[in-house]
Amino acid sequence: MPSYTAPIKDMQFVLHDVLNVTASSTPGYDELEADFTSAILEEAGKLTSEVLAPLNAVGDQEGCRLENGVVYTPKGFKDAFAKVKEGGWTGLDMPEQYGGQNMPYILGTAVGEMFSASNQAFTMYQGLTHGAASAILAHGSDAQKDTYLPNMVSCEWTGTMNLTEPHCGTDLGLMRTKAAPQEDGSYKITGQKIFISSGEHDMADNIIHLVLAKIEGGPEGIKGVSLFIVPKFMVEEDGSLGERNAVSVGSIEEKMGIHGNSTCVMNYDGAVGYLLGDEHKGMRAMFTMMNNARLGVGIQGIGIAEGAMQHAIAYAMDRKQGRTPLDGTPEGTGTILDHADVRRMVATMKADTFAARAIALACGVGIDMTAATGDKAWTARAAFLTPIAKAFGTDTGMAVAEMGVQVHGGMGFIEETGAAQYSRDVRVTAIYEGTNGIQAMDLVARKMMDGGEAANRLLDEIEADAEAARDVFPNMTDALWQASETLREATDWLTEQSNMDTRFAGAVPYLRAFARVLGAHMHLKAALADKGGPREKLARFYILRLLPEHVGLLAHAQAGEADLFALSADELAA
Amino acid sequence: MPSYTAPIKDMQFVLHDVLNVTASSTPGYDELEADFTSAILEEAGKLTSEVLAPLNAVGDQEGCRLENGVVYTPKGFKDAFAKVKEGGWTGLDMPEQYGGQNMPYILGTAVGEMFSASNQAFTMYQGLTHGAASAILAHGSDAQKDTYLPNMVSCEWTGTMNLTEPHCGTDLGLMRTKAAPQEDGSYKITGQKIFISSGEHDMADNIIHLVLAKIEGGPEGIKGVSLFIVPKFMVEEDGSLGERNAVSVGSIEEKMGIHGNSTCVMNYDGAVGYLLGDEHKGMRAMFTMMNNARLGVGIQGIGIAEGAMQHAIAYAMDRKQGRTPLDGTPEGTGTILDHADVRRMVATMKADTFAARAIALACGVGIDMTAATGDKAWTARAAFLTPIAKAFGTDTGMAVAEMGVQVHGGMGFIEETGAAQYSRDVRVTAIYEGTNGIQAMDLVARKMMDGGEAANRLLDEIEADAEAARDVFPNMTDALWQASETLREATDWLTEQSNMDTRFAGAVPYLRAFARVLGAHMHLKAALADKGGPREKLARFYILRLLPEHVGLLAHAQAGEADLFALSADELAA
Repeated sequence: MPSYTAPIKDMQFVLHDVLNVTASSTPGYDELEADFTSAILEEAGKLTSEVLAPLNAVGDQEGCRLENGVVYTPKGFKDAFAKVKEGGWTGLDMPEQYGGQNMPYILGTAVGEMFSASNQAFTMYQGLTHGAASAILAHGSDAQKDTYLPNMVSCEWTGTMNLTEPHCGTDLGLMRTKAAPQEDGSYKITGQKIFISSGEHDMADNIIHLVLAKIEGGPEGIKGVSLFIVPKFMVEEDGSLGERNAVSVGSIEEKMGIHGNSTCVMNYDGAVGYLLGDEHKGMRAMFTMMNNARLGVGIQGIGIAEGAMQHAIAYAMDRKQGRTPLDGTPEGTGTILDHADVRRMVATMKADTFAARAIALACGVGIDMTAATGDKAWTARAAFLTPIAKAFGTDTGMAVAEMGVQVHGGMGFIEETGAAQYSRDVRVTAIYEGTNGIQAMDLVARKMMDGGEAANRLLDEIEADAEAARDVFPNMTDALWQASETLREATDWLTEQSNMDTRFAGAVPYLRAFARVLGAHMHLKAALADKGGPREKLARFYILRLLPEHVGLLAHAQAGEADLFALSADELAA
Repeated sequence: MPSYTAPIKDMQFVLHDVLNVTASSTPGYDELEADFTSAILEEAGKLTSEVLAPLNAVGDQEGCRLENGVVYTPKGFKDAFAKVKEGGWTGLDMPEQYGGQNMPYILGTAVGEMFSASNQAFTMYQGLTHGAASAILAHGSDAQKDTYLPNMVSCEWTGTMNLTEPHCGTDLGLMRTKAAPQEDGSYKITGQKIFISSGEHDMADNIIHLVLAKIEGGPEGIKGVSLFIVPKFMVEEDGSLGERNAVSVGSIEEKMGIHGNSTCVMNYDGAVGYLLGDEHKGMRAMFTMMNNARLGVGIQGIGIAEGAMQHAIAYAMDRKQGRTPLDGTPEGTGTILDHADVRRMVATMKADTFAARAIALACGVGIDMTAATGDKAWTARAAFLTPIAKAFGTDTGMAVAEMGVQVHGGMGFIEETGAAQYSRDVRVTAIYEGTNGIQAMDLVARKMMDGGEAANRLLDEIEADAEAARDVFPNMTDALWQASETLREATDWLTEQSNMDTRFAGAVPYLRAFARVLGAHMHLKAALADKGGPREKLARFYILRLLPEHVGLLAHAQAGEADLFALSADELAA
């Protein structure tokens, strides 16, 4: 059974030694002294390792159960949820006005990683609530905020996001769910939504569904989509709960992982809904929220990577195995961690998890700075890093979980061991909140509409840091500087392409190469902060062995779309 | 529900147009005219798509059930097994003397891919039997061959391989299972074995277990391991079945995938066993058999890649989705296959599956040529290609199955869709018959004890072919030639390293780079055979976009072991 120890030192190292948060001028960051972050992270670490981690396998094995329209969560989830609420964790970065603790986003991000690492399926009940509350906070009327936010911030009520329908995923323009305007200003919502995480369960008094639907008679396609608040139980004027709304769960999906979360088919049969934000501007409202949610999903990937890594290292240090007869040491004297190839896997897991975490927290800084300053450069930085943090965080989660299974050998394929669960749970993170392909398309299109300015500004920073470190680490800085220049050329080439398919054909390898270079930058800063220490050693591993991947990725990124579309659909299917 | 169409044209293209099998001088290959291979492959294709594929999801959902020592296979497996036996498929490449059809190994390899593609869990009942029968064929006495082979070739009796014990996987020197010599020349076998695929089931009259154990008083460690035949039911002089032997199933493992195969804990409680081959030479006997079994596992990976790819392409061609608003085409008019990034994934799946299949079949040619000629160069070729075919075939299986899930988007995470099963089933292929890390270590150590001769001979061939094609495809040949030279330098560097850990530190990236170059060679030959056709287009995709990965991989391969071992175990665990 996997145990989990929150990587508090690693997180603090990134916050204080790599990103230097207290040295920044962000309001709220001045409080983030090491003593303070340590206190918060220790407390969250305790909760996640003692309460949530022990329920991770239980949730996987037991799953959720639907009986007569009621969804029962796995044994122990309800009590654990009560403890999470009690600790005030659900409102960590929410405004005090609605019962939150008003802490910087970056701290919520670090704590969020611990929650996902210890129990991803459980954490999603709270995570979706946070997402829905953020949307109401950003787009709701004062009355809507007052009605819903206090109970959602405390997780007395939970939330959901209803986008997907059976026939359409990413392309929401094909949506069929209808909203019929009523005389009292409300709407009647009718349609079916699928893949609704935490759609129905037994841990909260009410569930606030945010539902995308088309107002009858509105514009065709994506431009006619609006966002609605649809409570499971109607909320009376005095805040008490009234009648049950016409929303029900059709079934629970059988999934590859995150069995402890109820992924529901939701049926809306003329359910009462309230417009959130402007008519036909549902996508805008959704995107505001999804942008931060994307970082959140990246963090899920990183958390699961950390969990899988801890599990694999513990196994590798315990598993007795002689070294191979070839090098002459006596058989049966070591553990498998003595093997160079097991070390390669473990070092890759550690180096990539560190890189992904540092990139995600740097993105968090951008979000906090944007909120605090409104500075466009910070907005652009956060926007640019978001798809990278999401895709690289979840790609890392998948790769690390897969290596975790591999380190276990045959034991990894046996469910009892727990390694496989990480691999199954993390799989969805590369898909939801926009597949990683969509993230890459967003990066090379929308996030490069500035002609590559945000990208080049990052590269300038990287090269300046590399220059400054040249005397200390000549090999590493040279490798990083060269990689940054190669990436700059690819960036220039991409921004010159007016045919979007040319960009899209190389989008995923470009994003991966950018993450490799960003990761090397973070590792170089880590090495500078820990000269001669283990973080320098890990930086050397990353920069000299993993960073070179950017060469192949950037060749791929600039190969254009012609060959791709030269193959007809029939030729591809043949 | 996934359907499966055997890729007969692709297989024939590799056999006849890329590998030119009929033009070779291998005995038995002169029969392999296109008409003949077509007849065999069509027949196997029919069986696999009509009988085995429909049971693939059933096997996954139902799994195997243990009741009172009896293992029940999923519904329909028994009838399907009867049809497989009826068609004579189980003895395709076995000697006629024992009821086989004596066909070349390469044909069994192609047919084996179809079996794995359509139903991996099912196919393992036959696959393990084939492996056990091969071991008896290679190392058994005439009496043992006569006693066991006819019924094993026909699969009236099935076979198993018993290596692993709870405390030892790869390092068999730690083995505890004991063999006590009896006066009649037999042994009493006592111990517990785990991960025994097809260990017990209801589809055969008898099960012939091959069990590794240590004869009491023999040498310590790996040098004291012998191989034994332990039948489930004793076989009488007249060939009839006698008493039940003291071997029983302890439990069935709950696994990540291949639920339809019974992976058993087997208990030997003084079971009667017969020495197979020489005393204390069990590892030698095991390795003979495992070498071919490794290619077989590579083929499993390729088969599952093909199945996952067909499933994903069918979905992509059916799934309606407007193109992104960015390029201006009307929404809702296309399928997701119009998206450049979906095409990137589909083309990668196709290009890698082709490359892996061609490499595996080229390895099969080496095995057939070795058997026919005994020529050391062929032996070395087959031996060199085997770990690459195994690791690249199964890495490709994992990567393609994962992309198959990704192409499905959210639907891919829902088990009903079938995409996830490929991903779960294929996971074990990178682990069993020696993890892919072990394959890579074998490649850079044992398979390079010739000072790199086998490797360089392959590179000579590749460069000669590239030179010959330079006028036709200048870009592709140049890319391949350069890559081959870079690989040659890395090969020279590795063979010069006397510290095995230096080689092992770079083993996996080296193997992957070698596979990339071999794949490019196969693709170039395919392009030459199909100028201007879809295979040339796919070759361009592979050579210009995937082949460049070798640069990063070979940098990693030559980075040495020092940084890896600089990190202490405690630093890695911190």
